[in-house]
Amino acid sequence: MARIVMKFGGTSVADLDRIRNVANRVKREVEAGHEVAVVVSAMSGTTNQLVKWCQDLSPLHDAREYDVVVATGEQVTIGLLAIALQTIGVEARSWQGWQIPILTDQAHGKARVESIDGSLLIERMQAGQVPVIAGFQGLEPTRNRVTTLGRGGSDLSAVAIAAAVKADRCDIYTDVDGVYTTDPRIVPRARKLDRISYEEMLELASVGAKVLQTRSVELAMKQRVRVQVLSSFEDKPGSLVVDEDEIVEQPIVSGIAYSRDEAKVTLRRVPDRPGVAASVFGPLSAANVNVDMIVQNVGADGSTDMTFTLGRTDLPRARDLLEKEKATIGFEAMIADPDVAKISVVGIGMRTHAGVATTMFKTLSEKGINIQVISTSEIKVSVLIPADYTELAVRALHTAYGLDGPEPARRGEG
Amino acid sequence: MARIVMKFGGTSVADLDRIRNVANRVKREVEAGHEVAVVVSAMSGTTNQLVKWCQDLSPLHDAREYDVVVATGEQVTIGLLAIALQTIGVEARSWQGWQIPILTDQAHGKARVESIDGSLLIERMQAGQVPVIAGFQGLEPTRNRVTTLGRGGSDLSAVAIAAAVKADRCDIYTDVDGVYTTDPRIVPRARKLDRISYEEMLELASVGAKVLQTRSVELAMKQRVRVQVLSSFEDKPGSLVVDEDEIVEQPIVSGIAYSRDEAKVTLRRVPDRPGVAASVFGPLSAANVNVDMIVQNVGADGSTDMTFTLGRTDLPRARDLLEKEKATIGFEAMIADPDVAKISVVGIGMRTHAGVATTMFKTLSEKGINIQVISTSEIKVSVLIPADYTELAVRALHTAYGLDGPEPARRGEG
Repeated sequence: MARIVMKFGGTSVADLDRIRNVANRVKREVEAGHEVAVVVSAMSGTTNQLVKWCQDLSPLHDAREYDVVVATGEQVTIGLLAIALQTIGVEARSWQGWQIPILTDQAHGKARVESIDGSLLIERMQAGQVPVIAGFQGLEPTRNRVTTLGRGGSDLSAVAIAAAVKADRCDIYTDVDGVYTTDPRIVPRARKLDRISYEEMLELASVGAKVLQTRSVELAMKQRVRVQVLSSFEDKPGSLVVDEDEIVEQPIVSGIAYSRDEAKVTLRRVPDRPGVAASVFGPLSAANVNVDMIVQNVGADGSTDMTFTLGRTDLPRARDLLEKEKATIGFEAMIADPDVAKISVVGIGMRTHAGVATTMFKTLSEKGINIQVISTSEIKVSVLIPADYTELAVRALHTAYGLDGPEPARRGEG
Repeated sequence: MARIVMKFGGTSVADLDRIRNVANRVKREVEAGHEVAVVVSAMSGTTNQLVKWCQDLSPLHDAREYDVVVATGEQVTIGLLAIALQTIGVEARSWQGWQIPILTDQAHGKARVESIDGSLLIERMQAGQVPVIAGFQGLEPTRNRVTTLGRGGSDLSAVAIAAAVKADRCDIYTDVDGVYTTDPRIVPRARKLDRISYEEMLELASVGAKVLQTRSVELAMKQRVRVQVLSSFEDKPGSLVVDEDEIVEQPIVSGIAYSRDEAKVTLRRVPDRPGVAASVFGPLSAANVNVDMIVQNVGADGSTDMTFTLGRTDLPRARDLLEKEKATIGFEAMIADPDVAKISVVGIGMRTHAGVATTMFKTLSEKGINIQVISTSEIKVSVLIPADYTELAVRALHTAYGLDGPEPARRGEG
């Protein structure tokens, strides 16, 4: 017998048939003898509609009232799922954030969970009842107001609740069936990973493998919650995100990630003097523009070229800001390029194995792909390349690191 | 300066434009120097969708979970209206039932308000803030669960909150502009009543003039809350529902109501012995079938004909029940007639004036309308007639009791 938190996202509860499907999945775990709590998102599309109403009324709407409106999406789902469970003979009861309570700070719209009292939930689970919990929402206790955790917050709710009830596992059901060595739409021979470490998952999540929300992986790592990613539509085991000690055979490279949401900015002939980096990145940071990779060439004539990347949606704002600061910084010209992609090779095995970066550079070079910027971390090597080469690069690296699985059977043939 | 509770129904908040319109109405009262609290329903259509989802999942769904689902409709409206008010410079804050709290009993789906703590609301109103309160919902404190008050419950919420905050008036904004002497769609010369007593309003509400929910009128009468019914779309005074002492010139008859939601059942040759009425109405009452008018003729040969009316939607169930009890009751035949209408003449002046019923019978007789059943109360005379004669009867009575106003100007002419 285990204690399991099951989390279902918006597409998994998109209509009544899917809610019934979720109820059946929950029933199976209950009948297997497990103690189960369920966390659900709003039916897909609902949250977007609610957000749009708030924005149409006022782009600068009060975040406290925004939270009152958008929290209703999850409230509808918990009531419906509780009814669906009871209908097939599973004892169930819905729980809103304020009823548990899930206490958060006052940062409405993107609140942080501060504490969860798991005692009532544990009591009900031990008595054989399934708590059906609204994800994404909490209670700010000082003002007695509903808060929401920001987009993708239901993953975070699930992990936080799993920690609070001391669950053996937190199963995140989604529309993919696990974490892959890379995007299977690009590489059909991508393999599903049975296990992946928190650290690797974090690197993959932050570079565009949108399986799990980054904050939820951070929390799982901090609270040592074992997370499983699996499909709500198919019936097979998913990928387990765990402590690296639980991974017996650690591959050197676990996955290849890519992101096309990047843009590159180059400032030509920046004066090569102390403090110039601060004069460039200070104003960007103040305007909440996140800069990712940074390269600075050593100049010969007292000036240098400075290149960095940022989120593509931030590019127009960053250009405006830097143009205004042109005299202060003293650069000659600004060149912006939105047609770039970041390709990352991720693996905890890198800590103990040299040569991972060399293999990457060699492979890309053999395919004639020009590397524009390089950055590395302890378990990741990332390069910036022209966006047109994204698929070619991902496929070549996937093969080079020995990640290719067998050719999948094509559907509709045979 | 007065303290006012303003209540807006589903059609008044049906979309963002109408919510903005409501915000402007509230602003006007605030700028006139009044202390204002607002009670709102769900955007029209929303509650029906939520109810349908619950019923589709299970016709016998758990009422506690049903309440969790349907209470979201009002929650959306309060957040949106609070944003709309803030956008036009009116300080506002939303309140759900559990936040105030509005405490109810455990009768989920049709809970009764047991107590409302008005202190927080009064505090905010005195500080110049407008509380925007979700109608229709409350909190059952023992289990800490959301309850709803049943259909039309927002009127009830508004009156109960008006009593709790000791409001000078409870303004119910709706899609009609007041209480009329009869249905203006049938009688164009119907007049809007400036004032009507609680008792008359109750009789009119219960016989089909669907302006105010019956329970809310009962509560207003009990708590002495002055209620005004007025239009959210037009800008003119409505009708005031008040204690009869506040009505200086009491007309003998205030209005003519009708209802086509009735059906008539006649049991032929029922044995005329003690206990037979109980054998007929006991099973109906046990099955929650409300019987309204009852007539029993004195029979000559030890048997009698028994006629009664009930809600038309209850007719199939009642027929089944009575067929099953046929042997026990001992009647010869059952005749059901759904094509009947109940016409009622209502007025507190009847208490002191005789001849009201006589005028009614005479007027209907002159038009050749056959009266099937008669029932009376202290301030009401009702008759059952063939449904086809409804309009004719209402018009004739409206004229006979001197209720006709001037011929209204026709729209689109002139």
